[in-house]
Amino acid sequence: MIPNELKNDLRLKWSRMKDCMAKANMDACLLSSEVNLYYMTGLIYSGYFYLPVNGEPWFLVKRPNGLSGERVEYIRKPEDIPSLLMERGIRMPKRLALEADELTYNEYERLRKVFQPEECGNATTLTRTLRRIKTPWEIGQLRLSARKHELTYKEIPECFRPGMTDLEFQYEIERRMRQNGSIGLFRAFGPNMDIFMGSVLAGENAETPSPFDFALGGAGMGPSCPLGANGTPLTEGTAVMVDMAGNYTAYITDMTRVFSVGKLPEEAYRAHQVALDITCEIERVARPGTACSELYHIAAGIAKKEGLEANFMGTKQQAKFVGHGIGLQINELPVLTPRSKEELLPDMVFALEPKFVIPGVGAVGIENSFLVTKSGLEKLTLAEEEILPLR
Amino acid sequence: MIPNELKNDLRLKWSRMKDCMAKANMDACLLSSEVNLYYMTGLIYSGYFYLPVNGEPWFLVKRPNGLSGERVEYIRKPEDIPSLLMERGIRMPKRLALEADELTYNEYERLRKVFQPEECGNATTLTRTLRRIKTPWEIGQLRLSARKHELTYKEIPECFRPGMTDLEFQYEIERRMRQNGSIGLFRAFGPNMDIFMGSVLAGENAETPSPFDFALGGAGMGPSCPLGANGTPLTEGTAVMVDMAGNYTAYITDMTRVFSVGKLPEEAYRAHQVALDITCEIERVARPGTACSELYHIAAGIAKKEGLEANFMGTKQQAKFVGHGIGLQINELPVLTPRSKEELLPDMVFALEPKFVIPGVGAVGIENSFLVTKSGLEKLTLAEEEILPLR
Repeated sequence: MIPNELKNDLRLKWSRMKDCMAKANMDACLLSSEVNLYYMTGLIYSGYFYLPVNGEPWFLVKRPNGLSGERVEYIRKPEDIPSLLMERGIRMPKRLALEADELTYNEYERLRKVFQPEECGNATTLTRTLRRIKTPWEIGQLRLSARKHELTYKEIPECFRPGMTDLEFQYEIERRMRQNGSIGLFRAFGPNMDIFMGSVLAGENAETPSPFDFALGGAGMGPSCPLGANGTPLTEGTAVMVDMAGNYTAYITDMTRVFSVGKLPEEAYRAHQVALDITCEIERVARPGTACSELYHIAAGIAKKEGLEANFMGTKQQAKFVGHGIGLQINELPVLTPRSKEELLPDMVFALEPKFVIPGVGAVGIENSFLVTKSGLEKLTLAEEEILPLR
Repeated sequence: MIPNELKNDLRLKWSRMKDCMAKANMDACLLSSEVNLYYMTGLIYSGYFYLPVNGEPWFLVKRPNGLSGERVEYIRKPEDIPSLLMERGIRMPKRLALEADELTYNEYERLRKVFQPEECGNATTLTRTLRRIKTPWEIGQLRLSARKHELTYKEIPECFRPGMTDLEFQYEIERRMRQNGSIGLFRAFGPNMDIFMGSVLAGENAETPSPFDFALGGAGMGPSCPLGANGTPLTEGTAVMVDMAGNYTAYITDMTRVFSVGKLPEEAYRAHQVALDITCEIERVARPGTACSELYHIAAGIAKKEGLEANFMGTKQQAKFVGHGIGLQINELPVLTPRSKEELLPDMVFALEPKFVIPGVGAVGIENSFLVTKSGLEKLTLAEEEILPLR
């Protein structure tokens, strides 16, 4: 079932997960969310991944037909698992970690009844903590996504035709994304993150608050998809912020660039430069051990010093973070927010997105994906950072 | 907060929901899933919709900023709700319906602690039951989606160039979809339904089992998106099944058509005709009161009589349904499956999709969306049903 080239990567992940479980005093975990299955097995299937703290993993598959391999077992329903494992000499766990922030209430209760552990732990917390630190293979996947992300972004100026709306412009970018290998699916953790392929924000629409927990908003195409482009005409003097997904492998890079239709007001260029300065300053100070909250304070501090406090991360509604972990989902840990208690650690990968909304003009600023190295940051997403004119 | 043109529709839904709640002996429901919020309010916001069985609804909003209207109240967190309601003279519910198949375990438990009801009901069951019967406005939205769905399908032959792969063909269809107003987002209920814009299945890939609960499979672009097109070259003699979303409003129509590259083997045309015959027979017999299981048995029976049992709804893995409700999600109730206990009721809308996989050739068959009227079925998705050659 598991391809040879993933064997080492998966062994590393299982071993790290066992360390996490041991620290949390858990005997086993049972995972079934798509993202965690892919993380732990390199596959998405309908079924479960069962990992005892001292032992080998079991792959309990409902669908698709035809998988095979060591410790791959077909089940019809979760109720089949305990006897299947016991027949193979696996003891039932007393302390079982379940995905409490991913399973629905009914799924969770069903699994609890099936296993009847004395205690349940939260496998969502464990896996989200674990997934912060990328393995060498994962970093390689992120680099592959970054290369294709850059390729698409280079083609963005070709997508523009005078007279277009933000949506028409976005459709052309989406097409290039797909032609360059975007898998389309854009995974996020939790509710209130319903986004399609990314966001293009232009003109007044950049001020529109959204229900979702992204850095900026936009009215979207209608009340059932309230985020991003809304049909704003891309007229002279409009800033166009492109924040389209880097979903070219299962691992997503995050990158934002700004384009201008004709010339923007001077304040837009100045605010954009402040965003570049914030990025530079964070690149200068960030290293393993730096508090994530400090990175937010650096960004907000520079914005304030430059008199751009009221424009920082929105106007009518301001996001209270300036960056976030990325990986299989677009909103992984850590979050660069004043409330964060986390520190940067080597092999974390995060997006840094200082942005400013200029009323009537649009949004400016920058977003790049960074890898935390032993000594600092490495920028993964390389593309021209100035505001590029569309013509 | 609520647009005038939706006022009557929403009042109708609230009144139906109150009837459902009364039957289930519930005092109130609290909804927060995107789909249920949109259903009940015409909007998606971050927050809650609270409906007492005897009383007016409350709109409890966290984000976005700036909503206003009668009984619209801003909250920071769900813990704010009880005192807010009690200050406005609303009694706490003894029996509260929560979305037990949509909320995560932790969200559900948090709400239960906040409200401390004596008993919890399942608001997912209530809303899914309720949402089967479409309101006049919803039927209008489905008709709008159907018109644009048809428009895109008419353009499909123009998307083809000799030498293309299934994926390249799909990208062109996706582009037309967006240009014709597709909202992109393709909502499904439950886990294991991770699909992007729809599915194009060609050649041998039509046999590949998928982990997901759709009618057919396909390997997809890779192990992180295991469904649909996989890069199969569209060579002479290949059947190309197009099952792309009708997501042109929040209400999704479902339609499948088959195209051929050159001439297909005779058995493919014959099986396609059997799928058309199945549809005709079901159109002839189905009316309010018809058991959903009967519709499955009719389809499976015709398939068997024609010697196509082993090809019906897949080969290596066969779906055990021939249709499903549609609406805000692609997999609503009822399901046309032998296990169904449901009967057709007026104003249900469902997709009927008898399909056959022909090894080495691809998939053939048809899918249309139907409205259940007082006396029978009305086909909503009108487009040429024969296998159309691509050139």
